[in-house]
Formats: sequence, structure tokens, C-alpha cells
Amino acid sequence: MTTPPIDTTVIEQRFLAIWSELDGIGREPDPGSGFARFSWTEADFAMRAWFVREAEALGLAVQRDRNGNLWAWWDLPSADRSDAVVTGSHLDSVPGGGAFDGPLGVVSGLLAVAELKRRGVTPTRAIAVVDFTDEEGARFGIPCMGSRLLTGELDPELIRSRTDGAGITLAEAFAAAGVEPDEIGADAELLASVGAYVELHVEQGRALGPLGEPLGLATGIWPHGRWRIDLVGEPNHAGTTLFEDRRDPMLVAADLIHAARRVATEDGGRATVAKMIVIPNVTNGVPSSVTAWLDARAATDEHVSALVSRVLEVVDASAAEHRIDVAVTNESFTSVVSFDADLTARLDALLGGVPIIPTAAGHDAGSLSAHVPTAMVFVRNETGASHTPLETAETSDCVRGVEALARILEDLAGSRG
Amino acid sequence: MTTPPIDTTVIEQRFLAIWSELDGIGREPDPGSGFARFSWTEADFAMRAWFVREAEALGLAVQRDRNGNLWAWWDLPSADRSDAVVTGSHLDSVPGGGAFDGPLGVVSGLLAVAELKRRGVTPTRAIAVVDFTDEEGARFGIPCMGSRLLTGELDPELIRSRTDGAGITLAEAFAAAGVEPDEIGADAELLASVGAYVELHVEQGRALGPLGEPLGLATGIWPHGRWRIDLVGEPNHAGTTLFEDRRDPMLVAADLIHAARRVATEDGGRATVAKMIVIPNVTNGVPSSVTAWLDARAATDEHVSALVSRVLEVVDASAAEHRIDVAVTNESFTSVVSFDADLTARLDALLGGVPIIPTAAGHDAGSLSAHVPTAMVFVRNETGASHTPLETAETSDCVRGVEALARILEDLAGSRG
Repeated sequence: MTTPPIDTTVIEQRFLAIWSELDGIGREPDPGSGFARFSWTEADFAMRAWFVREAEALGLAVQRDRNGNLWAWWDLPSADRSDAVVTGSHLDSVPGGGAFDGPLGVVSGLLAVAELKRRGVTPTRAIAVVDFTDEEGARFGIPCMGSRLLTGELDPELIRSRTDGAGITLAEAFAAAGVEPDEIGADAELLASVGAYVELHVEQGRALGPLGEPLGLATGIWPHGRWRIDLVGEPNHAGTTLFEDRRDPMLVAADLIHAARRVATEDGGRATVAKMIVIPNVTNGVPSSVTAWLDARAATDEHVSALVSRVLEVVDASAAEHRIDVAVTNESFTSVVSFDADLTARLDALLGGVPIIPTAAGHDAGSLSAHVPTAMVFVRNETGASHTPLETAETSDCVRGVEALARILEDLAGSRG
Repeated sequence: MTTPPIDTTVIEQRFLAIWSELDGIGREPDPGSGFARFSWTEADFAMRAWFVREAEALGLAVQRDRNGNLWAWWDLPSADRSDAVVTGSHLDSVPGGGAFDGPLGVVSGLLAVAELKRRGVTPTRAIAVVDFTDEEGARFGIPCMGSRLLTGELDPELIRSRTDGAGITLAEAFAAAGVEPDEIGADAELLASVGAYVELHVEQGRALGPLGEPLGLATGIWPHGRWRIDLVGEPNHAGTTLFEDRRDPMLVAADLIHAARRVATEDGGRATVAKMIVIPNVTNGVPSSVTAWLDARAATDEHVSALVSRVLEVVDASAAEHRIDVAVTNESFTSVVSFDADLTARLDALLGGVPIIPTAAGHDAGSLSAHVPTAMVFVRNETGASHTPLETAETSDCVRGVEALARILEDLAGSRG
């Protein structure tokens, strides 16, 4: 008996129905402003509830692990979950995020499973679709939180008391969601059951468009990090205080913003100042302090390090000129990630040869790659826009993504009946 | 019968007692961070309650006018309040403000009245000490609110729906304090009763220190204004989006910060960017918009206007380069204020000749000067620091200020018994 072919018409219908359902969840208040689906908020709960319903409708067994990650298991009759083939991504978003970043991978995973089931494929390895907790780090400033807790990369002791913008601690947010905050952290047993991880994600850039290719595979992830730069001056009256008497940290922040762009342009990396907190932030008062965050990425760890050093040299010189105290804290750093070459080559052959491109964005796949053979599939984003409602993917490309993922799961886990 | 001389020992004792009492009201949570006494908050209520107690203890009649300004009247036996001599200032503060900016004028007014009463001076004109509502504009962004409502300079229609940082409207804040928001606005009758206004204020700058003078008088107030500059770009991923694809408003904000300092230095005015709101303000997302406020001041209206134009030329050029949309809103502008020359000359003679200096800070005295003969007395601030806990005035100088204010009130309103 042979299984029937993949039916892209069925996939497209299911994709459009799900996309329409998710479209109403977690919208920002202003029309056109995209989504705000932060972890453990109402919007996130609604996304998770959808995941559970959809998974259970497919006959999958839903497990919430100790870190709040949701797993939908297509179990073997033997109930053996070892060496499982796992796909997935995340359902949370940045503020004003697009529809695709995260959900496309989770939705595609469930649709790929649905298609395998429809065709009567019988897996010989367990398959799971996962939704990782708080990939974007939008709420607590901790990106890839769920996957990094799972692998043990993130020490729960160091993050439980971190607060969100409203002063709610991470421990409180987890507890309110019914996840015991004292039990978050490494889950070696669950991690050991993962035999391979393949994450599908909308492209965050525009490499595929000019190549005319709907899909690509990732070589790896650029190393990237966040540096918090505290600039402390002296509050004063913005009208009466002579310029020579001021210690205005805003001027140093401006130098930081310019230096990040200039140095990264010269060095071929990326550096951005996208977050600033000004204290007290009143029109007529020279700020007492400005805290700015530097996001830096480049092809190698050394490259990132050199880039950040050059930017901080500019900050130090400016701070000396304006009599500002500077404190620099490296809040996160993720070394270069190279995905599994054998697995990627196998997927490339399976997909008939597709572009293999690097990415400058962090992913849960990056967390898992140090522990499990891992690969990533990208779906073309014509605009290259990311972390914005302008992010886009054609439905036909999304269908190609599900089709590819179905082939991948079948190849890695399936046996023809 | 002659009245006894002014007793500076009595004044000093009373001053220190009051200063110690007020020291506990409205402290910022962090030690050393100064005061947060915003209008119609608990701290402001406590300051006002102190004012009422102190005034009533002196036998003054307390009136809260339709705009929430508090008046403590030393009435004539005839109850005639026309042509009154008024002194005072404000009890609210900027965030992280110092102890003197505002309260020193109100406290000195009450202490001057206490000293006149102690000495048995009998006024021939009514005397009032006033606490104006929300001089700093820290809560609703409307400086000199109480005095500008009184004079009719501020249209209540335009401000009732203004919100504070917590989304509370100005109308709601007034109503919660028991002031009917529909009745705020010009009070011609009350204003007509003011025959002269003399405001004592801590110096906001350091002109008096180098001159070795504890007191000064003001020539006038520099014209000053606030411009809100909305810079709208396009949100994007801070890691993956190519620099040439970005429309990053932060770079234009940095140019604005630098241009304000550079142009004002060249032109001899003051220009400051001290407030910025970044949307969405996340580390890994190129901002969709940055709103920055420009505070500009100079010796003449034309000078301010030219300064702002030059800064905005830089912003426009930068915005064109980075494909940013710019919208500029002049949120407030106060033309040059020249205090009453005759009154100032009379006070100068009375004080034995003191420095007469300009100020770049707005004051309630500026609001009243267009309607009433007005003058200002400054008390030396050795550091020149303002809008900060580092602001300071020596107790001996504060006592000199009270002594001067007592002489002024006696000269303008008193008759020797």
C-alpha cells in the first residue's frame, strides 16, 4: 500500500482557516499596529489555548513541560518518545510584531502532522510540535527563555526576580499561569528524548526574494548580544543651567547611537540602539541618567567583540568630555551557531536544492543546536521586514513551507505503510 | 509708637522648624533623589494641608480659588481686598526636584507675614500669600498652570482632557481634589484685586555667588518654549534588517540632540533635548517612532525663533537622509517677560542696591506680569543647580530673603502704627 501524494489544496484551506482564526488574537490597540502577544498575558493564553485545541483535534497528546513550553506529541504505539523528531517555534511576539514570526513555524508543524495523518503515514519515531515560551524576550528581556531554560543554558536563579514593565516578577508571571516557578530550569530527560529539531520560520531579511526562491535552509545564526549602557550625569534645569555647568548624558547617548551605525557600517556587522530610558524624562530638566541598549551582531564572535569595543571607545571619549559616568553590562551574548551540516544536507537534497543562508536573528533552534542535530527552514519574506506588521509571506510560499516540513517529518520519522 | 526691629533670630528659628517639617513630604523613593510633589497627588495634598495650617495659625483667611490656587489673606478691618499686595510661589516640584524651587517663596511669604504680625505692623492694603497650582507642569506638561488659568492665558477647553503618565485626565485630577473642572479658567475679579505681585524664588543659575550677593532682583524672564518633534520611521528587526532597508528614527533623534547643543552654543541661547519616548522601545526592534522634545530659550523672541529654525533644519536634513517623517508641534511658547521697572527700582532702593539679573526659567510671576506690577527676588544658589536635589540655598541667605520680603511687604502695604 502506498500513501497518497501531498495535497497542497487541502494544506492551503487549512492554513487560511487557522491564519484567519489567529488574526484576531492579541492585536495592538491601534489598527495596523500588529500584535502584542507577550508571554503569560491574555493574548498568549489565547494562542496557547488554540494550540491545545488544534493539537487535540489531531489526536496529539499535549504536554506542558516544567518551563511552560507546550509539546504536542504524535506518539508511537509503544509510547516510546526517545529519538523523537521535533518541529515548532514560538507563539509570542515583540510589541507591534507581525503575524508570521513564530506562529508560522508552529502552525506549519501542526499542518504538516495533519497532512501526514491524512495520508496515512505511520511514523517510526515519535513526532512532536513544540511552542517555546517567550522566544522574543519582549516581556522580561530574556530572549529564547523557554528553550534556554530547557537546555540548562539559562540559570533560573538569575531570572526569577526579573520584572516586566509593570513590576511583575518572572516568578509571579509563571505562578499566575500555573507553572511552578521553583521548578523551572534544565530538563535533561525531555531534552534527551529529542532526536532532531527542525524549525520553520519566516525569513527575517530578504535574501530569498532576489533569488526567486520560496524556501531556504540556514547555515547558522550570527553571534549576537545585548549591552546595557548606563550613563549617569547630573539633573539640572534645562533653561537656567549654563552648558559648561551641565553633565548631560543625552549627548553621550546621541554619540552612542551614531557610533553604533557608523562602526557597524564600516565593519560589516549590525549594531543598533533601539531602546532608551531617560530619567526623569521631563522637557525642562537635564536628565540625571540615560540608559541605552546596544544590540550587536556579526559573522564571528571576535567580530562582534571588536565592534562593541570600538563603539564603547566612542562612548568613553564622549563621556569624558561631558563628565558622565559610564557602566556597561553585557546582558546577553550568544556565540555563533552552526546548524547540523549532515541534517541540513539531507534536507537540502530532500527539497531539491535550495539556498542556504545565514541569519542574524536568534531562534530557539539556536538554543537546541548545541545539544541536538538541528536545522532551520526559512519561508521567503518579500519585504525583508521583521518585528513589524509589515512582515509578510505569501500564502503560496507558506503552503510550500508546510509541504516541505511534511516531507522532512516523513523522511526523518516516517515509514511508508 | 514705633514697631520693633526685624528679628532675624526669630525668623531663622521659624524657618528651620518649617523646613524640617516639609523635608518629610513627598520624598522620591530612592534616598538622595529629592522630591516628587506633583499637583493633586498625596504629596501635594500634604504640602497644601501644611499651608492651610500655617496660614490659619497666623490668623489668615484661606481661600481656594476656582483653579485650585491657595490664597492666605491678611485682611483689612474693612475686608477690602482690592489693590492687595501679593507674594508667593508654588509648592509642587519636578520629579527629583530640590527642596527650594517653589516652597522657599511660599514659606518666605508666610514667615514675612509672621514677622510683620510679631512686630505689630498694621497694613493699609490687604496682603496675600499664594500657592499656585502646578507651576512645574510635571504632571500634565502644562507649566504655570494655576497662574495662567487665573489670568486667562490658558484656555481650559484645551487642557481638560490632557492626561498624566497614568492616563488620568486633568479634569479627573481636579475633580478628585474637589475642584470643579468645568469652572477652571480666568478669574478676572480675583486678578483685579491684586495690586502688586512680588515672588521670591531660589536662584536657578549661579550669577549671585560670584558677585558675593545673597539676594538679587530680576529684570525679566527669557522667552522660552517647548517643541514636540515626532519622528516616524518603520519598525524592523534590529538584527536582520540591512541598514539600507531601515528607516530608523533614533538616528534623527541623535542629530537633534547634537544640533540643539551646537546651535545654542553658537547663538548664545539654551536648547535642550531632555525628554524622549521611543516606540516600541525594545532592544531588538528598530523603533517605529521616536518623539523628542526641544526646550529652547534665548534673550528675545526672535532669537528663540531663529534658534529653533536652525535646529529643525538639521532635523529635516537628517530625516530626509533616513526617510523619516517629521511633525513639529509647538506645545508652548512664552514671550519675553520684563518685570515692572518702577516696582523693581523701588525694591532695589529698599534693599540697598542688589544685582539685577535675567532668568531663563518660567515663573508664575511671568504669568502675572502682563496684568499686574510684578517683581521677583532671587536668593543665592551657590551651586547654580536647579531641578535637582543638588539645588541649595544657605539658611542665612534664606533668612535674608525673608527679611527682605518683610521689608517689601511693609513698604508696599504697611503703615507704621
